[in-house]
Amino acid sequence: MYIAGVGLQPVTRKGNVNLASMGGAAIKAAISDAQIESSSVGALYVGNMLSGMLSSQQHLGALLSNAGGLGLVESATAEACCGSGGAALRWGYLAVTSGAHDTVIVAGVEHMTHVEVERATKGLATASDWTSEGGKGETFVSLNGAIMKEYMRRYNVKHSSFAPFAVTAHQNALTSAHSTLKINVTAESYEASRVITPPVQLLDASPICDGAAAVVLTSDRALALSSSKGTNRIIRIVGSAAATDQLAVNSRPDILKLRAVTRSVENALSSSRLSRKDIDVFELHDAYSIMACCSLEAAGFVPEGQGTQFAADGNLALSGRLPMATFGGLKARGHPVGATGVYQACEAHLQLTRRAGQNQVQGANTVMIQNIGGSGASVFTHVLSAEEQ
Amino acid sequence: MYIAGVGLQPVTRKGNVNLASMGGAAIKAAISDAQIESSSVGALYVGNMLSGMLSSQQHLGALLSNAGGLGLVESATAEACCGSGGAALRWGYLAVTSGAHDTVIVAGVEHMTHVEVERATKGLATASDWTSEGGKGETFVSLNGAIMKEYMRRYNVKHSSFAPFAVTAHQNALTSAHSTLKINVTAESYEASRVITPPVQLLDASPICDGAAAVVLTSDRALALSSSKGTNRIIRIVGSAAATDQLAVNSRPDILKLRAVTRSVENALSSSRLSRKDIDVFELHDAYSIMACCSLEAAGFVPEGQGTQFAADGNLALSGRLPMATFGGLKARGHPVGATGVYQACEAHLQLTRRAGQNQVQGANTVMIQNIGGSGASVFTHVLSAEEQ
Repeated sequence: MYIAGVGLQPVTRKGNVNLASMGGAAIKAAISDAQIESSSVGALYVGNMLSGMLSSQQHLGALLSNAGGLGLVESATAEACCGSGGAALRWGYLAVTSGAHDTVIVAGVEHMTHVEVERATKGLATASDWTSEGGKGETFVSLNGAIMKEYMRRYNVKHSSFAPFAVTAHQNALTSAHSTLKINVTAESYEASRVITPPVQLLDASPICDGAAAVVLTSDRALALSSSKGTNRIIRIVGSAAATDQLAVNSRPDILKLRAVTRSVENALSSSRLSRKDIDVFELHDAYSIMACCSLEAAGFVPEGQGTQFAADGNLALSGRLPMATFGGLKARGHPVGATGVYQACEAHLQLTRRAGQNQVQGANTVMIQNIGGSGASVFTHVLSAEEQ
Repeated sequence: MYIAGVGLQPVTRKGNVNLASMGGAAIKAAISDAQIESSSVGALYVGNMLSGMLSSQQHLGALLSNAGGLGLVESATAEACCGSGGAALRWGYLAVTSGAHDTVIVAGVEHMTHVEVERATKGLATASDWTSEGGKGETFVSLNGAIMKEYMRRYNVKHSSFAPFAVTAHQNALTSAHSTLKINVTAESYEASRVITPPVQLLDASPICDGAAAVVLTSDRALALSSSKGTNRIIRIVGSAAATDQLAVNSRPDILKLRAVTRSVENALSSSRLSRKDIDVFELHDAYSIMACCSLEAAGFVPEGQGTQFAADGNLALSGRLPMATFGGLKARGHPVGATGVYQACEAHLQLTRRAGQNQVQGANTVMIQNIGGSGASVFTHVLSAEEQ
C-alpha cells in the first residue's frame, strides 16, 4: 500500500472558494503528482464534516468524482467530525488492502469561512454529544478548556507552559506555501493573546478555515505504473488503525487520558511492526494546545504530565527529537476540519520524499500521522515509511 | 465474508425516538442474533445522511459505539445520502475482506420525523447538486418527476402503468412486522392519490420516517464462532460494488439510463461470478416508482421501456420471477434514508435464512440488494447467497 502522489490546495480564510473547485483541484493535482491516468482510479473517498450544515451540500463523493473528472468510480464520504480526513484515509487503505481496487483517491475538503463564525462554531459543536454537551452550550473551546484546566490543576502547570506548542507550529508555517496563519508567535505574544474561554486563549486554538487535499493510494501491483515525482523514494503506509472513546468528555474515566489515541497508536504500531523509537515525525492533532499535549502523552511518546516540559526542551522543533506540525499543524497550517487528516498525509509524503523545502526534517524515514474527531472521541492513526527504490 | 446476524428496529413516523437509542438497540439486536460477544467486534460503520442537519449531531460512529456498548472499537460514518447504508455496508465489507477485522458491525440510522416536513425535504435536497438543483428549488420529488415525465413521453406509458410497483410494495408491508405503511393500496387508490409534482403522486413516493438497522459481518475465520440463529444456512456476501454517475440529473447523457446502477450491478455480478439469472430476489431502491422502474432496466433484468409491463405481469410479487420490496421496500417498509441500505441487508438475510414469515420468497437462495444515493448518482450493490451448513 503506497501513497503515489499528493495534491494540496492552499488553506485559506477568505471564503471565496467552493467545495467542488477546491476538491476537484486537489484531486487533479494528486493524479498529476502520481503520474497516473485518471482512468486507473477505482474509487474516491472524501473526508468532510460540515458541507451539509454550512453549504447545503451532502453527497461529496459524487460531487468531487465529477469535479475531479473520475468517471463512474465508486465514491462516498467518510465522517468522523474533525477526524473525517483520517477516516477517509482509513477507508482508502482498506479498499486497496482488500484487493477491491488497485488505485484509489482519498480527498478531504472543508468550506467554513463563508458563514458567520457563530454558525461554524455551532456546526463544529455537533461533533460533541449534543444531548449532554453541544445542546447545553458546550463548544470545542469550552470542552478543551475543561481538559486544559484539569491538566493545569493536576500537574501544577501554568498556561504559559503550553506556549511551545503554538510557537513551534507558527514558526514552521512561516516557510510553508500552503499554510494560512503565517504569523510569528513568541512565548510573550502567545501569553498575551485574548482569553476565549478560560484557560483557553486565542493562540491555543486552530483557526476556522477552508481547504482541500488529496492523495493517490496504490497497491503493490499498481506501483509499477506510478512513481513519486522527482524522487527515488517510495512511500508505504505501513500501519493503520482507528479507535473510539466515549463521545461525551465527562463520561470518560479520566478526561486527561485519551484512550482512543493510546489504542489506535498501539494498533498502528503493531500492524507496522515498528516501535515508538522508529517514529521520526509525529504529525499530531493540535486543534488546541492541550490536545497536542495530551496526544503526545496518550501516544506514549512522553510520560503523563510531562508534555509541556518535553515541548519546552525543543523536542518538537524541526531539528528536535520528535518534530510535530512541520508545516504549521492544525494551529497554523490551518484546520479545515474534514480535510485535516488528508493534509497530514500529504505533508508526511512531502517529508518522506524530501520535498519539504525549508520545512524538511532531515533524515525523516518514518512519520506517524494522527487525526482526531471531537475532543478525543474518534482517532485515526497511520504510519508512513520511505523505501529507497 | 458472512452476515452472521441482523437487528431491525420498527420503522416509525412518530418522531418520539432518538438516534442513540434506535441505533444502540439495532446493534444489540444484531449482536444477539449473531450469538457473538460484543468484545469480538472490531469496528462499527454507520450509514447516516441527516443527523447533523436535523439533530445537530454528527459523529454517529462514536455515538452508536457508545450506545451499542462496543468499547474502544474503530468507528466512523459513511455518507452517500439515501445510499449511506449501502456505503456503510461496502466499508464493512472492505474492512473484513482486507483482513483488518474479523468481525464488524454495519448500522444505519435516520431520524427525520421530529422536524417539520419542509425542513426534512430541504435536508434531502442536499443530496442533489445544490448549485444547479437544490439551491434552485429542485427537490427529490421534482427531479424524479422530470425523469418520470420523460419516461412516459419516450415510451408512451401512462401514469397508471406504474401502479404495480406501489401495489406490490404495500401488499408485502401488510404482513411485515417492522414496516411502517401498512395500507392496502390498489391500482385505483394509487391512481386516485394526490398529485405532488406532476406526474409524481403521493403513492409514487416513499415516506419520511425514522429507523435503525444493523448487521454483523464476519470473516471466514470468525464464522466458527457465530451462526445464524434457528437455521442451518449461512449467508455469504458474494458480490459488492459501487459506482457514481453525474450528480446533477441533467448533466447525464440520458436521464433514463442509470449508468451507476448498470456499472455497479455488472461489477457486483462479476465479483460474485454469478449472472442475472441466478438472482432470486432484487431488493431495489424504490424511493419513487420511476426509480424502481429505471433500476430494473439499468440493472439489466428488463429491456429498456418494459419495466412497467414487467411489473404488470406480476414478476415482482413474492411468487413472481423477480420479487422486489419483499417487506414493503422503501415505498412501504419506509425509507429512513441512511438506514435503508442496512434494512435491505437485514431483509435479504431474513429471506435467505427462511425467517421471512408470511413474506418468505420460496426457494430464494441469492438476493441482490441495491441502495441509491440521490436520483441515481451513487449506487451500492451487494449480492448475498445462502450456503447449507
